[in-house]
Amino acid sequence: MSDIVADFKFLSGVKIVDFTQFEAGPSCTEALAWLGADVVKIENPRMGDPGRRLRPGQPDNDPYYFHVFNANKRSITVNLKSPKGLELVKDLLRKADVTIENFAPGAIERLGLGYDVVKAINPGIVYAQIKGFGEGSPFEKNLAFDMIAQAAGGTFSVTGEADGPPIRPGFSLGDTGTGMLMAITILGALYKRRETGEGHRLQVAMQDAIMHYMRINFATQGLTGKAAERGGSKVPGVNNAPMGLYPCAPGGPNDYVFIMTSRANPEHWDRLLKLVGREDLIGDARYATPADRVAREAEVDAIIAAWTKTRDKRAAMQAVGEAGIPAGAVLDTMELQNDVTFEQRGIMQTMVHPVHKPFKMPGWPVRVDGKPSRVQASPVLGANTAEVLGDWLGLDAAGVEALRAEGVV
Amino acid sequence: MSDIVADFKFLSGVKIVDFTQFEAGPSCTEALAWLGADVVKIENPRMGDPGRRLRPGQPDNDPYYFHVFNANKRSITVNLKSPKGLELVKDLLRKADVTIENFAPGAIERLGLGYDVVKAINPGIVYAQIKGFGEGSPFEKNLAFDMIAQAAGGTFSVTGEADGPPIRPGFSLGDTGTGMLMAITILGALYKRRETGEGHRLQVAMQDAIMHYMRINFATQGLTGKAAERGGSKVPGVNNAPMGLYPCAPGGPNDYVFIMTSRANPEHWDRLLKLVGREDLIGDARYATPADRVAREAEVDAIIAAWTKTRDKRAAMQAVGEAGIPAGAVLDTMELQNDVTFEQRGIMQTMVHPVHKPFKMPGWPVRVDGKPSRVQASPVLGANTAEVLGDWLGLDAAGVEALRAEGVV
Repeated sequence: MSDIVADFKFLSGVKIVDFTQFEAGPSCTEALAWLGADVVKIENPRMGDPGRRLRPGQPDNDPYYFHVFNANKRSITVNLKSPKGLELVKDLLRKADVTIENFAPGAIERLGLGYDVVKAINPGIVYAQIKGFGEGSPFEKNLAFDMIAQAAGGTFSVTGEADGPPIRPGFSLGDTGTGMLMAITILGALYKRRETGEGHRLQVAMQDAIMHYMRINFATQGLTGKAAERGGSKVPGVNNAPMGLYPCAPGGPNDYVFIMTSRANPEHWDRLLKLVGREDLIGDARYATPADRVAREAEVDAIIAAWTKTRDKRAAMQAVGEAGIPAGAVLDTMELQNDVTFEQRGIMQTMVHPVHKPFKMPGWPVRVDGKPSRVQASPVLGANTAEVLGDWLGLDAAGVEALRAEGVV
Repeated sequence: MSDIVADFKFLSGVKIVDFTQFEAGPSCTEALAWLGADVVKIENPRMGDPGRRLRPGQPDNDPYYFHVFNANKRSITVNLKSPKGLELVKDLLRKADVTIENFAPGAIERLGLGYDVVKAINPGIVYAQIKGFGEGSPFEKNLAFDMIAQAAGGTFSVTGEADGPPIRPGFSLGDTGTGMLMAITILGALYKRRETGEGHRLQVAMQDAIMHYMRINFATQGLTGKAAERGGSKVPGVNNAPMGLYPCAPGGPNDYVFIMTSRANPEHWDRLLKLVGREDLIGDARYATPADRVAREAEVDAIIAAWTKTRDKRAAMQAVGEAGIPAGAVLDTMELQNDVTFEQRGIMQTMVHPVHKPFKMPGWPVRVDGKPSRVQASPVLGANTAEVLGDWLGLDAAGVEALRAEGVV
């Protein structure tokens, strides 16, 4: 692994006090950790981030959720309900470049760590907050999870069969999608801060962030004057055929290939006919133009499916792709995890953990000078308490032990 | 509008030479433009970015796709096939902090603007590339569009009914989702560059980027040992009820509310029973635990649906939310666009354009010191040619006119 990944140093020296939990916040700080920031998770001594999913008195049987969002971070435990714990965190905030939280509305203020308090302690800090609904929204006090934000942000409305109910997109865009927009803004603030030393308050709501990923749908609405629609695996508003999912052998639940011929490339249709052994239809007036093929879409799809059905989805993807027509097999998480080419490129990496078994997971997918960022273990709860209090605040072992004896850390 | 939005200055002074087209690249540079960078689109004089969707000899009836991904940028036209045009772009690259492209594999090299060439011109440049598949992938030479990357990156496999085929998530995560990861990495490189002056090559593939947004699914697979599954609007692996979409009045295609009771908050069930007028079931042994309710999920869902069916989805969202239970109405793009609270908060803004009619669209959703970034018009093709060549290269009007007369710009 050592030769194909690197330890990114872009943010070396950047100190982040991280109060976040679950996914929207942790996905943001993990991105910054992968770029080299020193991300210190502040966790309660009892169970830590609820994303750890620890169960009282029971073994940890689900470390994976925590692993995927907390690689490359450090963890310290602090009892924020104790006056000394609060003071300790304020000492850390004095040293920090960035702090971030995604508690329920009002919780950070009740802890005594609202923006005004922290700004008074450290005027140069970038103070970031992620909530479900925006300040000023009629729902600003409501709780939100990923699915709630996705429903209220529009993604359900455009996903599903044309004549069926809306369907949940099966992944957590509401959380990680929001975390990425906050990471971009934090980095913008840090860039300027090198010049000005100024801090800022940054706020994002998950419902608002979802719409950023739905701008094609808003553009389609601009064109049609109607709410963007669902189209199953077709793309509403794209008037060409063949385009969509085609079944492959041996007919398992994910044995399909997406094939997309382009309106702008009329030769796609002829190439595809040649590939599927239907040269006899090249030039056939019934299928000559995109409009003709859309009018006979069921026939056109049957012609393509007759060929794909006898092929493995990856072989089909390869053959269609080599013919110069965009194609993608529907791959599931197991197929992606087991495909060694991701590991060979450092896109999938195995997290080696001091407690849990090794876990292969996707790392930061952007390469710098040819190499992705090295995935390091997610931290054991409180594993770095003494180390961070030493590094950041100069506390010695005896000082940390005294805090521990008092139940502060 | 002036009081609720601001012109962000985080990246003021950062010069970006932007060769990108369609969405994956333009969404990235637009984020940087919203943070204050000077993003200069290099477009061919004939039709420009194909995302403009201009049709030869016909009026521009679809400016919306271009608007949503190109706000706050400048456009210059350069004929890259002419030796003088290529030299002109090299002069711009000498002045730039960042350059980015998302052409088909091999195209930028064929233009004579590959990494080695540009690095030799400007060793401090951040050179960013977005492709469909990664360097070293078996599919690295293949074309990709959003749907192809989503199929091959896994999102189709987890979206759809449990017993149905995979379904396309109806929005362009493959494009904008990738653009955001590249924006983060560019900003990391720029942050370090203030100290070192060093340039870097950054590369990301859409298929690889998709997996970043699917990490919950990989975590679930870690737990179950099986490929992550589809579950309609339920969340596979979350063992609690009620949770899911419930139908609302008047029964239109998007009249649903997502309600999610939490395993960790047993009082959610009792609160919900009280709200829906079924206090008689509080304490009923048939529905006492999450496991009991999952075993009788159809009954539980019917109890909740009997109440939601007679309510407007927003009223249901409000009432359930106020009872302390996470809830989100399924909102469509028209409902989101027409909800004035987004406009009042600056999350939706109206792009005022010199040619096209005003268009309300989502802007950058993160607020800085309480205000979102102001949305400015997307540029008319080549509108800024003389201005940019003046600003960046010191060319005067006569110099620009001479280039124009030669067909270089």
